[in-house]
Amino acid sequence: MSSNLVSFSTSRKLDIVPMGRIGVDLNANEINRPMEETKTFTKYVGGSPANIAIGMARLGKKVGFIGRVSDDQLGRFALNYFRNDGIDTSNIVVDKEGASMGLAFTEIKSPTESSILMYRDNVADLKIEPKDVSEEYIKNSASLLISGTALSKSPSREACFVAMEYARKHNTVIIFDIDYRPYSWASKEEVAVYYSMTAKMSDIIIGSREEFDLMEALIDPENNSDEVTANRWFDYRAKIVVIKHGKEGSIGYTKDGKSYKVKPFPVKLLKSFGGGDAYASAFLYGLMEGWDVEKSLEFGSASAAMLVASHSCSEAMPTVKEVKEFIKKAEEEHGEVAIKS
Amino acid sequence: MSSNLVSFSTSRKLDIVPMGRIGVDLNANEINRPMEETKTFTKYVGGSPANIAIGMARLGKKVGFIGRVSDDQLGRFALNYFRNDGIDTSNIVVDKEGASMGLAFTEIKSPTESSILMYRDNVADLKIEPKDVSEEYIKNSASLLISGTALSKSPSREACFVAMEYARKHNTVIIFDIDYRPYSWASKEEVAVYYSMTAKMSDIIIGSREEFDLMEALIDPENNSDEVTANRWFDYRAKIVVIKHGKEGSIGYTKDGKSYKVKPFPVKLLKSFGGGDAYASAFLYGLMEGWDVEKSLEFGSASAAMLVASHSCSEAMPTVKEVKEFIKKAEEEHGEVAIKS
Amino acid sequence: MSSNLVSFSTSRKLDIVPMGRIGVDLNANEINRPMEETKTFTKYVGGSPANIAIGMARLGKKVGFIGRVSDDQLGRFALNYFRNDGIDTSNIVVDKEGASMGLAFTEIKSPTESSILMYRDNVADLKIEPKDVSEEYIKNSASLLISGTALSKSPSREACFVAMEYARKHNTVIIFDIDYRPYSWASKEEVAVYYSMTAKMSDIIIGSREEFDLMEALIDPENNSDEVTANRWFDYRAKIVVIKHGKEGSIGYTKDGKSYKVKPFPVKLLKSFGGGDAYASAFLYGLMEGWDVEKSLEFGSASAAMLVASHSCSEAMPTVKEVKEFIKKAEEEHGEVAIKS
Amino acid sequence: MSSNLVSFSTSRKLDIVPMGRIGVDLNANEINRPMEETKTFTKYVGGSPANIAIGMARLGKKVGFIGRVSDDQLGRFALNYFRNDGIDTSNIVVDKEGASMGLAFTEIKSPTESSILMYRDNVADLKIEPKDVSEEYIKNSASLLISGTALSKSPSREACFVAMEYARKHNTVIIFDIDYRPYSWASKEEVAVYYSMTAKMSDIIIGSREEFDLMEALIDPENNSDEVTANRWFDYRAKIVVIKHGKEGSIGYTKDGKSYKVKPFPVKLLKSFGGGDAYASAFLYGLMEGWDVEKSLEFGSASAAMLVASHSCSEAMPTVKEVKEFIKKAEEEHGEVAIKS
Repeated sequence: MSSNLVSFSTSRKLDIVPMGRIGVDLNANEINRPMEETKTFTKYVGGSPANIAIGMARLGKKVGFIGRVSDDQLGRFALNYFRNDGIDTSNIVVDKEGASMGLAFTEIKSPTESSILMYRDNVADLKIEPKDVSEEYIKNSASLLISGTALSKSPSREACFVAMEYARKHNTVIIFDIDYRPYSWASKEEVAVYYSMTAKMSDIIIGSREEFDLMEALIDPENNSDEVTANRWFDYRAKIVVIKHGKEGSIGYTKDGKSYKVKPFPVKLLKSFGGGDAYASAFLYGLMEGWDVEKSLEFGSASAAMLVASHSCSEAMPTVKEVKEFIKKAEEEHGEVAIKS
Repeated sequence: MSSNLVSFSTSRKLDIVPMGRIGVDLNANEINRPMEETKTFTKYVGGSPANIAIGMARLGKKVGFIGRVSDDQLGRFALNYFRNDGIDTSNIVVDKEGASMGLAFTEIKSPTESSILMYRDNVADLKIEPKDVSEEYIKNSASLLISGTALSKSPSREACFVAMEYARKHNTVIIFDIDYRPYSWASKEEVAVYYSMTAKMSDIIIGSREEFDLMEALIDPENNSDEVTANRWFDYRAKIVVIKHGKEGSIGYTKDGKSYKVKPFPVKLLKSFGGGDAYASAFLYGLMEGWDVEKSLEFGSASAAMLVASHSCSEAMPTVKEVKEFIKKAEEEHGEVAIKS
Repeated sequence: MSSNLVSFSTSRKLDIVPMGRIGVDLNANEINRPMEETKTFTKYVGGSPANIAIGMARLGKKVGFIGRVSDDQLGRFALNYFRNDGIDTSNIVVDKEGASMGLAFTEIKSPTESSILMYRDNVADLKIEPKDVSEEYIKNSASLLISGTALSKSPSREACFVAMEYARKHNTVIIFDIDYRPYSWASKEEVAVYYSMTAKMSDIIIGSREEFDLMEALIDPENNSDEVTANRWFDYRAKIVVIKHGKEGSIGYTKDGKSYKVKPFPVKLLKSFGGGDAYASAFLYGLMEGWDVEKSLEFGSASAAMLVASHSCSEAMPTVKEVKEFIKKAEEEHGEVAIKS
Repeated sequence: MSSNLVSFSTSRKLDIVPMGRIGVDLNANEINRPMEETKTFTKYVGGSPANIAIGMARLGKKVGFIGRVSDDQLGRFALNYFRNDGIDTSNIVVDKEGASMGLAFTEIKSPTESSILMYRDNVADLKIEPKDVSEEYIKNSASLLISGTALSKSPSREACFVAMEYARKHNTVIIFDIDYRPYSWASKEEVAVYYSMTAKMSDIIIGSREEFDLMEALIDPENNSDEVTANRWFDYRAKIVVIKHGKEGSIGYTKDGKSYKVKPFPVKLLKSFGGGDAYASAFLYGLMEGWDVEKSLEFGSASAAMLVASHSCSEAMPTVKEVKEFIKKAEEEHGEVAIKS
């Protein structure tokens, strides 16, 4: 019996179109030391929605993307990388006004202490404009994923709202992956305004407790109940709300009043970031396959565990077979680990 | 029998709080010639929501304002003017970072040919910030009026959405006066996005046919039916939608399925602008008095006629007695003129 | 016997080309009160080099101008005004990117207490670009006058230096009218850097003691001797340095080691600004006529006295006949007043 | 017999203070391919004046620096690197307003085809302000080196001119290394204006023929004679002018009317950039040692040859011993190679 209340059209050209950041990660090769002392970096495609796109492509889904890249070697690197993974890049605009790819230098001081040094001035991804968004493209996809950072600045912000209007018009499922990053945002009130506007238009919302608190800062600043939060958005359009609590696991709420709790897989951490995008892609994969929410959450949690044990956030995205093997092995080792209903 | 479906609390400290532009009009004293040839200008307070605030104060209502003025002689002039009319200025912020009052040089080439030369760079009114908006102030007002131009740029845009969130939380009536001005807006898509977001949250919406077309540009670009437009917003929160058609008059739609048409009063035009703000204030005055929509529209139309025959947009705002005398005189002269149901 | 060490070519098409600000003054008609309480304003052309251009045209000189005006009614007003005075406007660029004319609202609280409220955001005059400067135009003028405010921001700053390079190449006399206004400048060090660069290239320098102090802030911050100042610039290219001391009059230094002191004419002040531009134009007129420095300074001082007794800074610029009559009358009344050698 | 007409004080705390860019180079480890296909990068300190600082420190000189770095891991990396080489960093400001280190991704497609992808938005080095420049620091150095790119934007531009004013005041030798980079500059006229202003104040000027052409674009656009160029600046303050002609070598002109030609050392190129900074540091080292211009040029040329055969632009800077050995070995192999008088 499935509690999957969202139905993804299977007859459309694309299964999902993530929208937002696509950048370049420069990951320190010498780890467990401060970046002042690292000597070499390895280049990967990065940015949360780009990672999700790669993740879903590895899982076998038909993936597009709406975004903007620089007109230089790093922009072409990202486009090539996407194409090699079979991601449709027809709606990624090449910026002609001198914008740059965002850079993220990652520093791994210890398995639990990481940091990211961002280069986000004049960044191509936030220059996507309303006119760059094709109604036809969104009509031809089963779902649209809005990554929260794309809402942080104009004109990218308005481009997202235009995309959402088209999605509602053509019954394209709207997924909101909150992905809060303090840079780019002008004020906490601004975050609250645009997060709640987006949440009102979304079918599926995924975020941490802290991210939902930001979203509710104006309308209900005292609340810290996951259930109250989930129900608030069920009053609009949402059917599934996933709220993450770090090491304590995450809970998936569904509009039919049920909830499913999943705890993290035991894993040897290499770094403390990168799990969220793997989680989102594998969870959404499950929903698209018609799995119930419980099983989808477990699949997401497994993929997240695989990612935090690896050096990159995109290149390490696993296939379905790899995730299944990982789960099987974990269960053999630790018993049934992920799901506590 | 009243078809007034919106109820304004009469027990709150303020009847209405307009939000947005407050500037200085410099009206050419020598009219019927191009501005190149005018020699002297008279200074008035201006800006659509400021005019509405003055209009409603003259009609005897308790009026506040949310806005931002410059820290100079022109900013103080505007604050003094408001205070002389009994408008509460406690929530008008004095900008401390060098912003200027917006200026509007008006040029009257002929009764039907006017133009406005705007000074809107680094303008104080668009610098109002989310943190400048007091939840308490909005809670203490029966209604909040959002003027469309305040949505055209950050941070004023977000300040408006914060104010609307507070208004919904405290059952403060939200009035959206579209007041489209092309300056400041980055694109037509941006206009459509923020106008429709605001319309979804509003109880009363007032605008011209062209303004509603801008609002619907993404979701229903082909539509030109007023009824379709009104019903769209009745599906959200709106109870009254007023659509203006210039010389052919305007129509008030109500959520109970009725509509009321009003045509302009015959009047000797001095200038072709300034009527809209008088219309809005007198119409809202009628609704607040518990008059039916029909009578309120007629009252608005009369006040508009009085304004376009005068030199200013703010100083000429009439009292209740003056509007009533104007209507009486017009009816004696022309028969019953304004309303065609 | 003349100590006029600068020779102005009389065979060129133009006698002088001022470069820099051209704006609109809005002078309060109701004087002796704060601007908060004034009702009407009269519009004049303004801006120091524009006033000098008008002043020299009234004195019968052939005048051009290098500058940039807005593409609107106020820009056309300024161009028309110049043309009516016979000033060549062929090298005034009409801005096509939405810049505005600078505005100066003048407030006369009392004869000695005035203030000016500036509108200088996105101002056309500071948008003049190096490519707008014609080598031919400067070659065809006997002199180029650089107004200090034009040095306060790029690209106007670089346009001035380009003009000065052309002037040196073609033996066009360079006059530097310091005209310090704190707005636009980023720091005192910046002022010092560009003022001293300009002074090094100039034949005639005119400014107040305070302005020369700004110029010397890096190289000789302790100095307050006019003689030391004058000699510093004589070591470069300067031949005449005029240093103004407000009510105590001004001193003209010449490279041959002489100096001439002139005190202000007795006059009933209407306002405390506007005299400087009249002073500069009448003084330069004298030099161009081949008068000695002493007589030229007296002529400048007389014109300044006439201006501070009138309502505008441009419209009141006198003719040669009027200045001469003023001097004659003053001498009859007060004895020989202006010159103390 | 020495034709070294510039004398460097040996009694000051520092021998040289370069001013301008300090950034991070990210050099592709996989060479002879486009950057789209490279995987890893090695991190070096970069930026022309930073390279010169390192170069001179390796040659045993007492080196300071005036600049600005980011308040993050990359900024600290650069400061640490300087300190390890014994460079005084007391006058390098740590930016507190969110500026970033400039990045230069270098791509070596073939030994003769290289390119650099720049990240220069909101870059710390161009934010150095006039008030960051210490008169005392410049007084305590024998020489100040201005790197041309530091002139490309305010406030760095004005900071350079302030530094030059102090240098002239205290007889600190001014060296102008033109180092033209098109980014940051607004127009060719701007380049011409500020290059020629700087050249007028400099004792030693080093640049390529193309760079001198840019400098002379306004005052003598037709000229392509090195001798005319050198003599132009000898009329101001210059004593030595070095003009580079790529593979054909370079010529040093001295104010006493002599000139010295040097051709490049034969070398196996790894990359086509980085030689200039080695050239400048070794040439200046020679002058400071009191060598004649000829020998100094040869020393510079040798160091340049060593650099283009290595992977980095800073780390590979040689010691005196290494350069001497390189020259000796080259002469044994090829005969006397560098100098043709």
